Amino acid sequence: MGKYGEDTKLIYELQDQGGELLALRYDLTVPFARYLAMNKVNNMKRYHVAKVYRRDNPATTRGRYREFYQCDFDIAGQFDPMIPDAECLKIVHEILSDLQLGDFVIKVNDRRILNGVFAVCGVPESKFITACSTVDKLDKVPWEEVRSEMVGISFDLSLARGLDYYTGVIFEAVLLQQENEHVEELVGVGSVAGGGRYDGLVGMFDPKGRKVPCVGVSIGIERIFSILEQRLKASGEKLRTTETQVLVATPQKHLLAARLKLISELWDAGIKAEMLYKKDPKLLKQLQYCEDTGIPLAAIVGEQELADGVVKLRDVSTREEVDIPREKLVDEIRRRLEP
Amino acid sequence: MGKYGEDTKLIYELQDQGGELLALRYDLTVPFARYLAMNKVNNMKRYHVAKVYRRDNPATTRGRYREFYQCDFDIAGQFDPMIPDAECLKIVHEILSDLQLGDFVIKVNDRRILNGVFAVCGVPESKFITACSTVDKLDKVPWEEVRSEMVGISFDLSLARGLDYYTGVIFEAVLLQQENEHVEELVGVGSVAGGGRYDGLVGMFDPKGRKVPCVGVSIGIERIFSILEQRLKASGEKLRTTETQVLVATPQKHLLAARLKLISELWDAGIKAEMLYKKDPKLLKQLQYCEDTGIPLAAIVGEQELADGVVKLRDVSTREEVDIPREKLVDEIRRRLEP
Repeated sequence: MGKYGEDTKLIYELQDQGGELLALRYDLTVPFARYLAMNKVNNMKRYHVAKVYRRDNPATTRGRYREFYQCDFDIAGQFDPMIPDAECLKIVHEILSDLQLGDFVIKVNDRRILNGVFAVCGVPESKFITACSTVDKLDKVPWEEVRSEMVGISFDLSLARGLDYYTGVIFEAVLLQQENEHVEELVGVGSVAGGGRYDGLVGMFDPKGRKVPCVGVSIGIERIFSILEQRLKASGEKLRTTETQVLVATPQKHLLAARLKLISELWDAGIKAEMLYKKDPKLLKQLQYCEDTGIPLAAIVGEQELADGVVKLRDVSTREEVDIPREKLVDEIRRRLEP
Repeated sequence: MGKYGEDTKLIYELQDQGGELLALRYDLTVPFARYLAMNKVNNMKRYHVAKVYRRDNPATTRGRYREFYQCDFDIAGQFDPMIPDAECLKIVHEILSDLQLGDFVIKVNDRRILNGVFAVCGVPESKFITACSTVDKLDKVPWEEVRSEMVGISFDLSLARGLDYYTGVIFEAVLLQQENEHVEELVGVGSVAGGGRYDGLVGMFDPKGRKVPCVGVSIGIERIFSILEQRLKASGEKLRTTETQVLVATPQKHLLAARLKLISELWDAGIKAEMLYKKDPKLLKQLQYCEDTGIPLAAIVGEQELADGVVKLRDVSTREEVDIPREKLVDEIRRRLEP
């Protein structure tokens, strides 16, 4: 075993041009474990969205990039069995349900069961990890092939990645889809989340080998985004790229100050508001902008509205407009935005 | 001028051990400009919190680390003069006010005014940037020293950093403090945000030199955090490290499933809830945890509460407890958490 345990293929490196240590991440689990060890943290629950880097040269045509985002959730600490593990599964279920990704299955296993099976089958302990990687291929290649690999013992260690630091429960979430309109059975179309318990990783980084049990899950956010994008495209719906709730607009010239004052009131009330960065934009252009970007409401303030102490609130999709007393505008916007 | 304009000291590099390009950030403005150029983006408004790395070896005793977080807000695009610039100032004002950091002043200047002053004073154009860095020291060293530096023209180019890519408005937010109890005057105790307009930076990365005007601001979040921490310490208040609103607790054994069910209901309602990862924790331990971590409410569900269809809601600070019908629990928690 190397410094960080070569056997476990820890994929974390830190160096700069001069050979001095800086930072480079291939994975978020390993830096998390390292963080716990270096800072002597005994328990922590956290999520983390960050850029990581692939070592290989991926086929960019298939949407795989060297730089990509990973999202991890982990619970570290000495707790009663299976309670934090269950929370990880609950979170995967919650994310996949809330995003309405369709049917999915969460496969659950345990490394200790696998190890037991291997032991019974006579696989030597030194080959457990490689045997795991072979078993992991069962949904991709036929049994005959897996069998020949297990018996021939011609393993490719690089396939063990991801599985190699797990010590207990392991799980993977797979989206399901009807293969075609004639077959009712649902088939797996790809893994979107996975994780498990890794009780030995922190100890590898700790100078005294102090162990901190951990369980965590990685969410394949780029994969999920690309699925959501494809579905939206297929349904003809537009993908909103902002969360703006209200566009503050003016129908005449010389009203920049009025727009700035109104948008400031909305911001202070916590409403997500936007305006065009133009001195005297045409009203049509402002309304067109709402339609193009999916902003649901426009708050229009012109000379008449200023004189009357009202704001014209426009529903962008129905094009209905109502004058609202200025002091009631925030409440009315909140009411309309309620789900 | 080098590939990325050596004159402007662009501090973005990408390489790994083998000399191949990967990523290493010293600054968020430059990667943002590079991103706009590489992806041919003409306008964008975004904020960004990310780790950056210092080149030098900072004095860690003074709270300066090689790895630190930076937070940037930028508006890119061809817009009418000063409108996005004003929004940047507004945001700095909002952040510093909302965080209740005390009195502060936002200094505003414009590179073009400085350049005009230098031209009138006879500073050669090639020395404008270095002259700027000297002027920037005016609040740190006496005028005589600045004057001698300007006249002797013995500049240290490394001090120009930060100011060097700005082309228009520049600003800096400085916290003020009474120097001591006998002097009423407020004095600056340190810069916590700064930024300005940089209309030339995107063009340096664009293969065709296409320009995208930009204005932005960097917020010194680590500095702000350390100020907030010191103040909390001084006031004897505890710094909360989580946002948990409710601890779900049980007073008897064999109620893990009941806790899991209740916490799930609260999570589904968007309430930030937590529970101890123990099978049968002591009630005292659970309540102590609330006091230690500052969780304001405890939702206690025991055998009696289950039988009665209620949950005991405890106000951690007053220790008052009320039985709430289970179906009204979410509303009651929301009501109590209202500011």
